[in-house]
Amino acid sequence: MDLSTIIGIGAAFGLMLMAILQGGPLSIFYDVPSLLIVVGGTIGNTLVHYPFGDVFDAFNVAKKTFRYKEISINNLIAQLMEFANKARKEGILALQGAMENVDDEFLKKAMQMAVDGQEPETLRSMLQTEIEYIQLRHNKGADIFTSIATYAPGMGMVGTLIGLVQMLQTMDDPATIGPAMAVALITTFYGAVIANILCSPMAGKLRNRSASEVLVKTLIIEGMQSILSGENPRIMEQKLHAFIAPKLRESVFNK
Amino acid sequence: MDLSTIIGIGAAFGLMLMAILQGGPLSIFYDVPSLLIVVGGTIGNTLVHYPFGDVFDAFNVAKKTFRYKEISINNLIAQLMEFANKARKEGILALQGAMENVDDEFLKKAMQMAVDGQEPETLRSMLQTEIEYIQLRHNKGADIFTSIATYAPGMGMVGTLIGLVQMLQTMDDPATIGPAMAVALITTFYGAVIANILCSPMAGKLRNRSASEVLVKTLIIEGMQSILSGENPRIMEQKLHAFIAPKLRESVFNK
Amino acid sequence: MDLSTIIGIGAAFGLMLMAILQGGPLSIFYDVPSLLIVVGGTIGNTLVHYPFGDVFDAFNVAKKTFRYKEISINNLIAQLMEFANKARKEGILALQGAMENVDDEFLKKAMQMAVDGQEPETLRSMLQTEIEYIQLRHNKGADIFTSIATYAPGMGMVGTLIGLVQMLQTMDDPATIGPAMAVALITTFYGAVIANILCSPMAGKLRNRSASEVLVKTLIIEGMQSILSGENPRIMEQKLHAFIAPKLRESVFNK
Amino acid sequence: MDLSTIIGIGAAFGLMLMAILQGGPLSIFYDVPSLLIVVGGTIGNTLVHYPFGDVFDAFNVAKKTFRYKEISINNLIAQLMEFANKARKEGILALQGAMENVDDEFLKKAMQMAVDGQEPETLRSMLQTEIEYIQLRHNKGADIFTSIATYAPGMGMVGTLIGLVQMLQTMDDPATIGPAMAVALITTFYGAVIANILCSPMAGKLRNRSASEVLVKTLIIEGMQSILSGENPRIMEQKLHAFIAPKLRESVFNK
Amino acid sequence: MDLSTIIGIGAAFGLMLMAILQGGPLSIFYDVPSLLIVVGGTIGNTLVHYPFGDVFDAFNVAKKTFRYKEISINNLIAQLMEFANKARKEGILALQGAMENVDDEFLKKAMQMAVDGQEPETLRSMLQTEIEYIQLRHNKGADIFTSIATYAPGMGMVGTLIGLVQMLQTMDDPATIGPAMAVALITTFYGAVIANILCSPMAGKLRNRSASEVLVKTLIIEGMQSILSGENPRIMEQKLHAFIAPKLRESVFNK
Repeated sequence: MDLSTIIGIGAAFGLMLMAILQGGPLSIFYDVPSLLIVVGGTIGNTLVHYPFGDVFDAFNVAKKTFRYKEISINNLIAQLMEFANKARKEGILALQGAMENVDDEFLKKAMQMAVDGQEPETLRSMLQTEIEYIQLRHNKGADIFTSIATYAPGMGMVGTLIGLVQMLQTMDDPATIGPAMAVALITTFYGAVIANILCSPMAGKLRNRSASEVLVKTLIIEGMQSILSGENPRIMEQKLHAFIAPKLRESVFNK
Repeated sequence: MDLSTIIGIGAAFGLMLMAILQGGPLSIFYDVPSLLIVVGGTIGNTLVHYPFGDVFDAFNVAKKTFRYKEISINNLIAQLMEFANKARKEGILALQGAMENVDDEFLKKAMQMAVDGQEPETLRSMLQTEIEYIQLRHNKGADIFTSIATYAPGMGMVGTLIGLVQMLQTMDDPATIGPAMAVALITTFYGAVIANILCSPMAGKLRNRSASEVLVKTLIIEGMQSILSGENPRIMEQKLHAFIAPKLRESVFNK
Repeated sequence: MDLSTIIGIGAAFGLMLMAILQGGPLSIFYDVPSLLIVVGGTIGNTLVHYPFGDVFDAFNVAKKTFRYKEISINNLIAQLMEFANKARKEGILALQGAMENVDDEFLKKAMQMAVDGQEPETLRSMLQTEIEYIQLRHNKGADIFTSIATYAPGMGMVGTLIGLVQMLQTMDDPATIGPAMAVALITTFYGAVIANILCSPMAGKLRNRSASEVLVKTLIIEGMQSILSGENPRIMEQKLHAFIAPKLRESVFNK
Repeated sequence: MDLSTIIGIGAAFGLMLMAILQGGPLSIFYDVPSLLIVVGGTIGNTLVHYPFGDVFDAFNVAKKTFRYKEISINNLIAQLMEFANKARKEGILALQGAMENVDDEFLKKAMQMAVDGQEPETLRSMLQTEIEYIQLRHNKGADIFTSIATYAPGMGMVGTLIGLVQMLQTMDDPATIGPAMAVALITTFYGAVIANILCSPMAGKLRNRSASEVLVKTLIIEGMQSILSGENPRIMEQKLHAFIAPKLRESVFNK
Repeated sequence: MDLSTIIGIGAAFGLMLMAILQGGPLSIFYDVPSLLIVVGGTIGNTLVHYPFGDVFDAFNVAKKTFRYKEISINNLIAQLMEFANKARKEGILALQGAMENVDDEFLKKAMQMAVDGQEPETLRSMLQTEIEYIQLRHNKGADIFTSIATYAPGMGMVGTLIGLVQMLQTMDDPATIGPAMAVALITTFYGAVIANILCSPMAGKLRNRSASEVLVKTLIIEGMQSILSGENPRIMEQKLHAFIAPKLRESVFNK
């Protein structure tokens, strides 16, 4: 469970509802045609911009942001150090047995490549390419939410312009001006809510997630290359620690 | 047929029309001078910015986005693996025969270069240059739509300012203020529709298409270079799989 | 004559005039103090930002965009291929004679360097530096127009604020509010016209011109380096063709 | 104490309060529901965007900007020069003793690596990685403040739209329009204050701090590498001086 | 005297004053609390963002933009060519004597390094570092003016919102609405003037100055490296000419 996402969305929507209810009934802010033009129009724009599959994937990935298990960087470093010791004592092929307890697919692949006897440089360049394209795919999810956060206020403005033009054309009874303008503004409101409360922060979360995953994978490459080159474990640990904040560094040698 | 583009544009325009009709007749939003200044003026700006040929090409490319056959990355990798096996068994010249069944011009060119006996590095650098300039040309199409999405709201604002100044100068009869302002706002409406519903998503689609094509061509370079270097087919497959999502990877060796 | 620039500016201004005349006399939009503050103020800002010489050069370059002879890439490639053949048959010094019919100063310089016996790598690095600094100078012209397109709406807003404050301070007679506000808005109108119809598209055109020139010069470097290295003409042609769209490629060997 | 931050925030808030009090009571600008929707909503958006830990860290780091001891670059260079002389005279292991008086953790680590006998290139590449990831972590703090400066005006706009729609729907008594609109604008005001006076400048300060720290660490790497390579101290000093402004350069050789 | 800066600022301010006076007394635009909140608040924001010293330096540098002696690139190239000839005829140590007539500190340093017998590559890399950090320091000046140009309209908006809220809360007498709104708008006016007329163009000027200085220093590095490598003077001249526009190139060999 990613509490931060749930609490964040809950707080923003809750406080917005509270502010609304404090000033009048909620029903004023519920208008089906306005919802259709903003939500439907934005989905339309997004489908022109991105293929079905990518939009579908983005929503799937977004769902995942509600449940997420942070990977412990320290555990990963400890695991890599253990593999390094094993490889130094029993030879690189001993990693074959250790692979069974590894969940991370990327780490498994890196270990398989090491066991298969690939050169440290080949392993690095192949896995670097993999990281690069993982980033491209991850960023597509974030880009889709960023695009929605751009299109929604645009559709909100189109809806408000429609309402304004219609109101101005038929300005007979002054008493109807206020409510007509209120309805016209609701599409702008919907656009602002979709952009500010939902999609921009969600795009940011996806980008942060991607950055954490890339850090984990970069550590795996760095560690496996160190193991393959038969580097001194103390130097290997120093190298891996360079990627994380000093206060998080726990040396296996100080235990 | 690219359903996503068609459904997307249809949905956005349909919902906008529905929202308009729900509030009054469509004719209010149809004003010839406003159309002329926004559409004509935007085309004018675009012609100053880009040469005729480029604008013409951009519209041609845009038309193509309605019908498009996605290239299957897996089929491409399978094909490259097949060529690799052929080249290993029968020599690189055996690719000459295989070229006849190849549709992709870029792959054909890469194979021809391989058959002509060029060095792996020459092949890579020449085809990299080609990809780079293909990207430049593709991006020009997307840039033109992005420019239109910038110029249209600008011309809409110019039109609205003209209407406002004229209305304010001749504000004798309060009853005419509303309709005059409604007409003034219509150019802003046109500008927003052209930018948000048509051109921004279209520019995005063109950029996405370009990225897919570049991925296909990068795989071709990677694969042909691997074939020319006589690399182990398993390693070649691993290299090519690094470019695509793990769930899409289908090994020819597991069949 | 660059028809695209002329037609583009003519269309945008013509349609704007038409829209104005359709709603009232042109004289409403002609206000000397407003013109002075927007046009004069923008020129002032631009002179603070850029030295006299650069602004003067930018206007000179802009004038050139009205008459422009597109360089045929195909002719250039054909010419380079001809030089390659000459150099292969009669030696590199034979280019001395061929230089007389060359107009392009950059090509002439490249040929002179080749005849002077410079290394391919020296030739490339020196001419690359030259291209880089040509781009810097060209971009300055485009940047000046982009700056004007930023300053003009800023001065328009300053002018409108002056008018609004003065109108609001002396709001005795309701009948004067409309015309006063109309005049206040005219500076915003001038700013929008200068930015949207004149300067932004012009900056874009200058950038496009620069990109075409850089492409021509890059082809010259690539070709001369190929000639100096005594590369196979077929490979040289393939290399040069990599820079242009497949449908534009005309091989001299297929004739 | 970082006087510049304290005086800056004090001046901006003080002058704002003064401007408010000069026109009426402060209580007009104090509205609990408005505060809740803007401050609470912005915190909600930020928690969706960033994990708890990062937001917490960012506020911790922000607190630190109020008390900060500028590191004297000249003292650092003098210290590095001293170490260089010591290493030349007594050997690199003599740095072990000198480490006791060193506070900076990064310098200590660099010295330990030198004493441990690592190659100059290994030392550089490992410490470069460390700087790169320090920058990534520092920039996250600044990015969080930049995000808040984006979300706060967004929530302000949402709040104002809620107020406007409610006011327009119930526009019976003209006397209530003014105060209702005043309240609606207060959320926009809160958003503007949070963005302009608090978070944007704070994000800038964090970025500046990070840049100063990176400069210090870069000098340490440069100096330690010079010491490890046994470079001439005069050249080492020249190299270190290249990083700072000429007027700040104090040579140890001119004393 | 940098006439372009002085004329530019004079013209923009003069025309603005003229536009104001043409519509009413200047005193309407003079409001002390508004000045305090915009100017004082902006200075406050800037002090949070940047340390005292940097802000102080930025204003010092800005003052310098009013008096400035353009360095003649052609004289510099001629001087470097002269040194090249001297070095070829009398040896590199002959530059020691020539240094006395050199004003430019950077050129002096480069010559001293050459006389001290440093390798061409060491000279280049050390001076490149120096240019890089000069650029960082120069850009800080321009960044401060850009920041002010962002903060001033922000504070102007805060001031206007304060005025609007106060006006709307106490809307008893319709006659006071106009003047109250006029005063509220004055902070927006101040913000726009500071941003558009003063700080944005000034930031641009500082960036242009920095670019010219960097060009001069790059020529010095290029020339000194050429001299140290004992390159043919004609080739050295060609190399230096690559950095400047063809019409400015004056060969010392054509005289």
